[in-house]
Amino acid sequence: MSEIESQARQSADRVIVVSSDCHAGLPIAHYKPYVESKYHEILDMAVPITIEMLQKAESSFLIKEINDEWRAPIKQQLTGAWDYQERIKMLAGDGIAAEVIFPDGITEMNTPPFGAGLGLSSRDMDPELQWAGAMAHNRWLAQFCSNNPVRHIGVASIPLLWDVDKAIEAVRWCVDNGLSSVMIPTMWGEHDAYHHTKYHPFWEVCEDLGVVIHFHSGPAPHPEYFGKNFPVEDKSDELPGAMGMYVSEVMWWLYRPLTFMIWGGVFEQFPRLKVVLTEGGTVFMLPPWLRLLDHNYTDVQFSAKLGDFRSHLSMSPSEYFARNINIGASCIPRRDIELRNLIGVDKMMWGSDYPHPEGTWPNTRSYFSEVFSGMPEADGRKILGENAVDWYGLDRAALQGIADEIGPDPSLFD
Amino acid sequence: MSEIESQARQSADRVIVVSSDCHAGLPIAHYKPYVESKYHEILDMAVPITIEMLQKAESSFLIKEINDEWRAPIKQQLTGAWDYQERIKMLAGDGIAAEVIFPDGITEMNTPPFGAGLGLSSRDMDPELQWAGAMAHNRWLAQFCSNNPVRHIGVASIPLLWDVDKAIEAVRWCVDNGLSSVMIPTMWGEHDAYHHTKYHPFWEVCEDLGVVIHFHSGPAPHPEYFGKNFPVEDKSDELPGAMGMYVSEVMWWLYRPLTFMIWGGVFEQFPRLKVVLTEGGTVFMLPPWLRLLDHNYTDVQFSAKLGDFRSHLSMSPSEYFARNINIGASCIPRRDIELRNLIGVDKMMWGSDYPHPEGTWPNTRSYFSEVFSGMPEADGRKILGENAVDWYGLDRAALQGIADEIGPDPSLFD
Repeated sequence: MSEIESQARQSADRVIVVSSDCHAGLPIAHYKPYVESKYHEILDMAVPITIEMLQKAESSFLIKEINDEWRAPIKQQLTGAWDYQERIKMLAGDGIAAEVIFPDGITEMNTPPFGAGLGLSSRDMDPELQWAGAMAHNRWLAQFCSNNPVRHIGVASIPLLWDVDKAIEAVRWCVDNGLSSVMIPTMWGEHDAYHHTKYHPFWEVCEDLGVVIHFHSGPAPHPEYFGKNFPVEDKSDELPGAMGMYVSEVMWWLYRPLTFMIWGGVFEQFPRLKVVLTEGGTVFMLPPWLRLLDHNYTDVQFSAKLGDFRSHLSMSPSEYFARNINIGASCIPRRDIELRNLIGVDKMMWGSDYPHPEGTWPNTRSYFSEVFSGMPEADGRKILGENAVDWYGLDRAALQGIADEIGPDPSLFD
Repeated sequence: MSEIESQARQSADRVIVVSSDCHAGLPIAHYKPYVESKYHEILDMAVPITIEMLQKAESSFLIKEINDEWRAPIKQQLTGAWDYQERIKMLAGDGIAAEVIFPDGITEMNTPPFGAGLGLSSRDMDPELQWAGAMAHNRWLAQFCSNNPVRHIGVASIPLLWDVDKAIEAVRWCVDNGLSSVMIPTMWGEHDAYHHTKYHPFWEVCEDLGVVIHFHSGPAPHPEYFGKNFPVEDKSDELPGAMGMYVSEVMWWLYRPLTFMIWGGVFEQFPRLKVVLTEGGTVFMLPPWLRLLDHNYTDVQFSAKLGDFRSHLSMSPSEYFARNINIGASCIPRRDIELRNLIGVDKMMWGSDYPHPEGTWPNTRSYFSEVFSGMPEADGRKILGENAVDWYGLDRAALQGIADEIGPDPSLFD
């Protein structure tokens, strides 16, 4: 094809949409067949407690009434969080050719057992059980994605903090079973942070096997905001303004592992390692974070007495960011799209956040028109799918075939 | 005076310089006469341990060689950290009419006993002893400042976290003894954060007595960056890049109490309460922090499911900032001065950071010329002193008298 033909072709093709932020998982009790039998008894005990905790969390951390109202008319479609046939319908409805799948959260009560879901961290959990829960989810997820590996990029849950060797073994199992994306804890609590050299063998195996590491927004020190008895029965027992603190800090907690990995030289030593930060917004956190890191890398005037903390890095923090890190921008608003050159148009990967109520589903197609109309088609295609195709190394030809059936028409950019 | 005469007068007057960030304190052993006698025995034991820890901290956290080289030619002048006659000479040399005085840090080994200095926080310290150390420093500081209360604004150390009643009693003692500025811990560890209503009586007494609350940059979770054995004997035992993480996060930890106080409604309920953030820079942290808080106050599109966390606040976060918070901008570089309209020219209070090596002393006068030349005189006068005069309610006439003898000539703005 000549260049002109290629441009004409691209412009006529339907848009390949990749959601970099979807969620799936079983209702907790249904994980039983995927949990090793030696943990069945404790799982049976954990199920009602977990459900109670999730309900409590929904009525304190979230607003149950709003969720209930939102859920009522779409009850059947929400089973796409675990039912494959519903899932396919949801993707077709939204025009999504491929999706990156994280574990689920509170809304659908379908979290992996033993705290191995989105809130994965070091707190209040028995290491052995968290591993058991994570691997149960990973087994189910591998099976779910095997329905069509071209379309479903499952993000396995890896409780890295407890045991690096076990994490390496788990990553190998994941890759052997078709999962080459993983999520590790955003907060390390009393464990060593991610600049510790003990994690090097883990980064090494991820780099070698082309495994993409993910951090998903959500974890934060909730008891500091909401009070030590969080989650409380009654929202009125919360400390005042707690949610304001949470939404003002949660992005910082998401970016924090990268602050440690960049300064710790992780990307210097593992130059092909890939990391994605998901649902942490774009304009609020990313530009000032990069500016500050780069400033500390280049400015020596005021910090001479602090010694050398730069010479082990051959590149600036923003250069590591450009090479090693990508942004799962989720339901990016028009305001952020218009500032895309501040972020880097190659660094924003849209996501629907299905099945969460703050996501674009089930109004994704009208969201596309509202947010993307009038922008250059090349930029729009990048943000909606091409960036993710490149970053995850997806099968573009196969996805074009799917997009040609269900994808949005490029006229959405008119 | 007519307005024209007043302008001519102002332009001819020497500049009133107020340093919003100076440090003073005794070498630890010398605090003994200020410590209650029942703690003398344990102080005798603590002195050599503290000195060893400070030396260890200097050789790991800081670069001892650089500090040594810096100290060598100015050994005598550095005793101004506790010697009043040297202090007066230092202020005259720098052209400083008045100063805000924090406890000292590592450089001069003159920290209050029992962890009651700049690193004041909840960690690894016996509450009773920390109170004993804080009150010892406060007694000495009150005496030191009484040499000339017009010029010396001492910041008392108040370990608020342990005991709110005791903190209120201490604040009353401070005010009775001429100290109407206090410093409270930047980090609360396992204690309740500052949105907890248990602190309301403390805010109330500070508001009533016109006591200004300070947070000074420095505290951060060092063991996360440097390793659990921090401070280590040998800098090469540190985890890689630890200092990069520290300098990239320390401002966030400084601003964090304000995130909690604003959302918690502290400034809503105590509208005359005044807070100062000292040595946390200006352009890197402040504008994005305010932008994010205001966004979370106004944007409801994506957070409906999170409930109401705004209606208890009658103003936006940036409006509370404008009314209740000020910035001790310390050795502000020219770059930040040029962006003064981004910060608010009324919100920047310069400080020399004497006697710290990253400060402008003993080159303050040449720093003034380099950084302030060519800027409008009115803006320059605000940043160098008038903002602090207004905020702390200082005796302007008396300070003009002092400035007329030692202050810089307004030609520095030419």
